[in-house]
Amino acid sequence: MSASVPTDICFSFTGLIRRGGQTGPHKDGWGIAFYDGKGCRTFHDPAASAHSPIADFLRGQSIKSEIVISHIRKANRGRVAMENTHPFMRELWGQNWVFAHNGQLRGIKKLPLGLYRPIGTTDSEHAFCWLLGRLRDRWARPPSDRVLEAAIAELTAELGGMGVFNMLLSNSRSLYCFRSTNLVWLTRRAPFRAATLLDDDLTVDFAKHTSPTDVVTIVATRPLTSDETWSTLPKSELVVFRDGELKSPA
Amino acid sequence: MSASVPTDICFSFTGLIRRGGQTGPHKDGWGIAFYDGKGCRTFHDPAASAHSPIADFLRGQSIKSEIVISHIRKANRGRVAMENTHPFMRELWGQNWVFAHNGQLRGIKKLPLGLYRPIGTTDSEHAFCWLLGRLRDRWARPPSDRVLEAAIAELTAELGGMGVFNMLLSNSRSLYCFRSTNLVWLTRRAPFRAATLLDDDLTVDFAKHTSPTDVVTIVATRPLTSDETWSTLPKSELVVFRDGELKSPA
Repeated sequence: MSASVPTDICFSFTGLIRRGGQTGPHKDGWGIAFYDGKGCRTFHDPAASAHSPIADFLRGQSIKSEIVISHIRKANRGRVAMENTHPFMRELWGQNWVFAHNGQLRGIKKLPLGLYRPIGTTDSEHAFCWLLGRLRDRWARPPSDRVLEAAIAELTAELGGMGVFNMLLSNSRSLYCFRSTNLVWLTRRAPFRAATLLDDDLTVDFAKHTSPTDVVTIVATRPLTSDETWSTLPKSELVVFRDGELKSPA
Repeated sequence: MSASVPTDICFSFTGLIRRGGQTGPHKDGWGIAFYDGKGCRTFHDPAASAHSPIADFLRGQSIKSEIVISHIRKANRGRVAMENTHPFMRELWGQNWVFAHNGQLRGIKKLPLGLYRPIGTTDSEHAFCWLLGRLRDRWARPPSDRVLEAAIAELTAELGGMGVFNMLLSNSRSLYCFRSTNLVWLTRRAPFRAATLLDDDLTVDFAKHTSPTDVVTIVATRPLTSDETWSTLPKSELVVFRDGELKSPA
């Protein structure tokens, strides 16, 4: 999620977590990161989200955030363990960077790492560490949005060339997305209407929970609702959202 | 906590969180980090722990861990905000490092930083970043326990000279403690007995919840129980626990 004002993710999260072991096979752990200004709080659990007490608890908490990244895992490289549970987080330039990935990357572990080292054994964390290391090698301080965006576009294209790379990344300011195979999005804005989850018997009328100026974008592997229009992200291209709005490609 | 086997912290946590706004003044946020092998999950909340729904939820979860670091905050430097909420976490040498601090450090922000940069504005996070940066400057890969311990002893002594520095630090293997003013500890081992919290009307009989070989050390600012013998840590000296046992000073 990328939003113009702190917004809760309860509705989307309710649908997503059912895919972790109930309506979907991604039962090997789950995690979520809620940005709160420059701060970020994360919740991780190596158990299936559909049966996780923490996921169930969070579903009822109205934690408001401008950027949220959540992931449910189907393990392929790296055993089911806390250290292999997405999203991964690192500090770069005094910013919290958060990363979640779906897919496999052939030969990723041959890419040389810089200052950032994986704690677990997934392809994904290796790719994240490589990407941040390359950014840190280039700049000791954060460059402008445009320059940073071009660098991330180049690095994610390189990763995308190594296999399946559906990715969400944020530095607390922008939400960066890259699609190899599956990633869809929609933006909700006034006039708001109701929406119904595909994975749960739940409808919410956003008109009752929003202000007219709110802009909220949701990006997901597959559509979360049955009665809204989801668009597929362009393939193999970096897409950037800020404050709920699509910023790039313009 | 440092323990020989994964152990839950429910009892101690129940007493501690009451000090965050109920039996104590540390109402400006709280956090907890549970190691799970090399992985680590954290929970943070900038609200008072005594009234926090997440703290209340966690109190009832039996999350087992070999090392736990928790902190309740009374803000002095740095506003009440997520990014200023302890414990702080960074990756160094592919390990999760976690840090919590009580006290103030005069002139700390003049210490030059290396690769690690604060996200928030506390003295504590600056001290943590400085310490990790110094370790990383010295070694690109982790040195032996003894060499690492000597380096941390030297760096924490330098920080201790700058003001009040009561600290807990871990790399998922050892629990490092440094006391300027307040830090007490005890080790529970067979024969286990009952203990009663100072801050809540709760008694637990550890004999019913442990195996005879379990060894569990608790370190806290002030004693958590009324009917056990807590010892003060030596002043201005690094103390190291591993697997529940005191390792240094021997």
